[in-house]
Amino acid sequence: MSPHLAAAPGMRLLSGIAGPDDLRALPAADMPALADEIRGFLIDTVSASGGHLGPNLGVVEVTMALHRVFDSPRDVLLFDTGHQAYVHKILTGRWDRFGGLRTAEGLSGYPSQAESAHDVIENSHASTALSYADGLAKAFELSGRRDRRIVALVGDGALTGGMCWEALNNIGSARKRPVIVVLNDNGRSYAPTVGALADHLGALRSGSPNAANLFDLLGFAYIGPVDGHDTPALEEALRQAADLRRPVVVHTITAKGKGYGPAEGDVAEQMHAVGVIDPVTGVPVSGGKRSWTSVFGDELATLGAERPDIVAITAAMPLPTGLGPFIQRFPSRVFDVGIAEQHAVTSAAGLALGGLHPVVAIYSTFLNRAFDQVLMDVALHRLPVTFVLDRAGVTGADGPSHHGVWDASLLPVVPGLRLAAPRDPRRLRELLREAVDHQDGPSVIRYPKAVAGPDIPTVRRNGTVDVIREDPGARVLLVAVGSLAAAALAAADDLAAHGVPSTVVDPRWTAPLHADLVALAAGHDLALTVEDTTATGALGARLAQALAETGAPARAATLALPPQFLPHATRDEILHAHGMDGAGIAANVMKLLNGTACTR
Amino acid sequence: MSPHLAAAPGMRLLSGIAGPDDLRALPAADMPALADEIRGFLIDTVSASGGHLGPNLGVVEVTMALHRVFDSPRDVLLFDTGHQAYVHKILTGRWDRFGGLRTAEGLSGYPSQAESAHDVIENSHASTALSYADGLAKAFELSGRRDRRIVALVGDGALTGGMCWEALNNIGSARKRPVIVVLNDNGRSYAPTVGALADHLGALRSGSPNAANLFDLLGFAYIGPVDGHDTPALEEALRQAADLRRPVVVHTITAKGKGYGPAEGDVAEQMHAVGVIDPVTGVPVSGGKRSWTSVFGDELATLGAERPDIVAITAAMPLPTGLGPFIQRFPSRVFDVGIAEQHAVTSAAGLALGGLHPVVAIYSTFLNRAFDQVLMDVALHRLPVTFVLDRAGVTGADGPSHHGVWDASLLPVVPGLRLAAPRDPRRLRELLREAVDHQDGPSVIRYPKAVAGPDIPTVRRNGTVDVIREDPGARVLLVAVGSLAAAALAAADDLAAHGVPSTVVDPRWTAPLHADLVALAAGHDLALTVEDTTATGALGARLAQALAETGAPARAATLALPPQFLPHATRDEILHAHGMDGAGIAANVMKLLNGTACTR
Repeated sequence: MSPHLAAAPGMRLLSGIAGPDDLRALPAADMPALADEIRGFLIDTVSASGGHLGPNLGVVEVTMALHRVFDSPRDVLLFDTGHQAYVHKILTGRWDRFGGLRTAEGLSGYPSQAESAHDVIENSHASTALSYADGLAKAFELSGRRDRRIVALVGDGALTGGMCWEALNNIGSARKRPVIVVLNDNGRSYAPTVGALADHLGALRSGSPNAANLFDLLGFAYIGPVDGHDTPALEEALRQAADLRRPVVVHTITAKGKGYGPAEGDVAEQMHAVGVIDPVTGVPVSGGKRSWTSVFGDELATLGAERPDIVAITAAMPLPTGLGPFIQRFPSRVFDVGIAEQHAVTSAAGLALGGLHPVVAIYSTFLNRAFDQVLMDVALHRLPVTFVLDRAGVTGADGPSHHGVWDASLLPVVPGLRLAAPRDPRRLRELLREAVDHQDGPSVIRYPKAVAGPDIPTVRRNGTVDVIREDPGARVLLVAVGSLAAAALAAADDLAAHGVPSTVVDPRWTAPLHADLVALAAGHDLALTVEDTTATGALGARLAQALAETGAPARAATLALPPQFLPHATRDEILHAHGMDGAGIAANVMKLLNGTACTR
Repeated sequence: MSPHLAAAPGMRLLSGIAGPDDLRALPAADMPALADEIRGFLIDTVSASGGHLGPNLGVVEVTMALHRVFDSPRDVLLFDTGHQAYVHKILTGRWDRFGGLRTAEGLSGYPSQAESAHDVIENSHASTALSYADGLAKAFELSGRRDRRIVALVGDGALTGGMCWEALNNIGSARKRPVIVVLNDNGRSYAPTVGALADHLGALRSGSPNAANLFDLLGFAYIGPVDGHDTPALEEALRQAADLRRPVVVHTITAKGKGYGPAEGDVAEQMHAVGVIDPVTGVPVSGGKRSWTSVFGDELATLGAERPDIVAITAAMPLPTGLGPFIQRFPSRVFDVGIAEQHAVTSAAGLALGGLHPVVAIYSTFLNRAFDQVLMDVALHRLPVTFVLDRAGVTGADGPSHHGVWDASLLPVVPGLRLAAPRDPRRLRELLREAVDHQDGPSVIRYPKAVAGPDIPTVRRNGTVDVIREDPGARVLLVAVGSLAAAALAAADDLAAHGVPSTVVDPRWTAPLHADLVALAAGHDLALTVEDTTATGALGARLAQALAETGAPARAATLALPPQFLPHATRDEILHAHGMDGAGIAANVMKLLNGTACTR
């Protein structure tokens, strides 16, 4: 476990809070001072560890009010998304563990059932909390536990996601099942919230008494707008909401990054989730090296100048996905659709039907939300759409719901879809060009949240496959997928030192499985794929299946991640733990060779 | 190709319509007579072929008006869902092909680009058309083709799906990009439309001038309500909508099953999609045999009596998924959430968090829309939820977007999820009980749209695996998944006749892959999985991968469906075409044996 923090001088009130009871015991007059202490604590700890700073600075008073009015865990508090739960953690007996925030064995950056009985849902994907709330309300009604109140804190950005609509439709029509929706309206997701909903919330924020009210229309009582930084007003509104005993929306107006200069105002997007920063200036402490994201961003802007038909789509994350340079040059060719991955994909299908080539820039973990749209709306129609998946593979500090370890198993199932993982910046640029040049169906490029290493030269091209090392007499084939090529080459050095010559190849396009790769594998005794993804359904599975068809005696084994949800830790720590660095890969090969029963 | 229909006596006007130009040339006064002709034609042809009768009877006049006011294909007509496009097909030069509706090589039951330039999107999943429309509108704006108008026909049921919300949010905020949404409000999806939206549409239908208006609030102009069976009124409303040159909703009120006694009124749900029926009475002509659906439905009702914690969830399809008996006995324990698969899954997670055991009854193809919710909201939280997937595997006449051939590749990727396919009714009942008894994470049962055959006895149990045939000296292992067990046994007879003894097993739970199955495979020369799913990521892939780890010389091959979108045809035709009947399985084994290079 990470070292426990000791109370610092600026924590007179906070240091006495071991749980919500202590918070409730404080007089209301202490709340502004406590809020200040919490903000100072957040800035100090999160600037040192990295994490979601802006969102949590915005919900300090709202979270305090929730814990003073409701009785967690008897009453259920749900955070949508979970990244706005830091203050909740601080108030539920965990401030002393913030020294280890988002580090291996340390506090999670999201709610965690293992950490606390106050944490109910662990997911970090947006727009889910209202659906949980609806299910809980139904369960409490059926089991006669209507004394347990259900409160969901939801951002205005999350409301642009279709799941929220589905949930509102269900909750609002059941007058006798009270669910309290606390709308944390800061006008933003990462970027400013988009669409007709944002316009409507703007009208409600202005307090215009004649404005039609979406929530009222959907069967909810509406309380607000309430100043989200005024604790007495918030407590009053929440008590009122609870007394109504019916579905109700409490509309709170908050400022993202509240109380921290560098995080307020126009730069709020950049401070949504931070790495390690200087607490005074907000300037990143580390950095300078080239990320995969920035290689993509620059190349897309270059392509955009050559190809006027290229447009870009983001689901509320224009800058984190690297679209900045493209946006600067071609602002009219970028569409931010909100936290709405399904619409991102199917509106891309519409753009392609209309003759353009859309590039959907999205995190790997979020594309899972639109699998059916990729399958049915894009691939069934053989539409040329390019998906660029950032944060693919082991992602690190954000934990199980942010690791992008599923796309490489799901997407190869889609007929006609092509999937690539670049091994270096040069290949990323090449593959991106191949993707946008492809006219018959979707292409996907995936890369991790990491620094992109130096280019790795091709020794020779074998069919569609790049051979990047070739030892004479090799019996072992290492199939290095994407950014793990460098580790595979290091493993080949290790193996050579142990008298095991090997061939190392980069298949470039990993789906569909190409006959050239199968033939290469059939020409060795053992092929080991090295993949930054979950092993189930990985390239190694498809290669093993294809080899079995051929009848060749070669074996195809898979070195990838186990079929588990992986906790938070650094990317390198996780790859090392699963044998996916040079030494680990070599050790896996030796183990497999010693177990071989069918050699030539 | 299927035989072309000749014009019948009741088709005076219809027989002259080879395309929209002919329709537009007719005087307005002929429209009621033409509508009658089209209804008669639909009833005659669809009662003979089976298909979506009720929805199409409801949109006769709306579709006629669309093709008279707009100029397809220059103007783009989008149908959400595609099953309401029969009238569109009739009016775009295809009435003479309705004799082969939904049969191999015949007319598709959905729009099809291969059939007609008037068919733009082929998908049958609900709630997608507005997203396509948004993309097309963006493309036409950027490419200077604003003369091309975009019209999407959307049901009120489809509006309960979150994708529609995401699209409305985007479309409504772009005043200068005109999209015409024609709301086909019949108050139903399969079942009556649920939720706050349905209540709101009810208020709008009543024409109350003071009602707040959802569409207005989201930035749309609103025209309506319009009688959806009054062609002049519809044409006038559509012309008005087009003239506005901004996002607009035309709210039409239609009656599902209009003009056909058996399909109107309370039984509309049953007539939504029909098999072959008597055209006068609406009574099914075939039938009598036991479907998998009904075995499930009866057993769930039995379980419901034993276990008060069991609740059922449906996404707008209570009866087609077999929930009828459970609904009759436990109406308060059933939740229809609308066409809202994401909410179905995550509200189930909420119900499980609240201590109940939800059974989500859903078609296989539609669970794809909630993969992320299964992964993150259920499995990450290790919640006990049972999913029952009807229409899994080859489904038949509904074609590429209804075949349930993806779930068995996607779901094994989910950590902690268990997947089973019953081989017979007895196993379905057993596995369902095992599923609802499981406390640590989700379980999934899948079965096809088919008659359930007789029970197949277990010869002996080997670990977790049922051995259902065991020839002395067997070198071949047939791993029969689910309902293909009978075909595998037939293949074993064939093989024995050719001197190839075999073992046939039913793994019961196919995910996670159990060591007992791997050990059995390692004890034979060749294991062939026989699976009613796409081959990519199937059980055979996971078995081949695991065998490679062991170093055993056995091979694991996969007999399943190719990585393609499969067209419509009967289930038996498709299984036969892909070698998945007795003779086909045996032939595949012989071919693989002849290619074996590594035998003991």
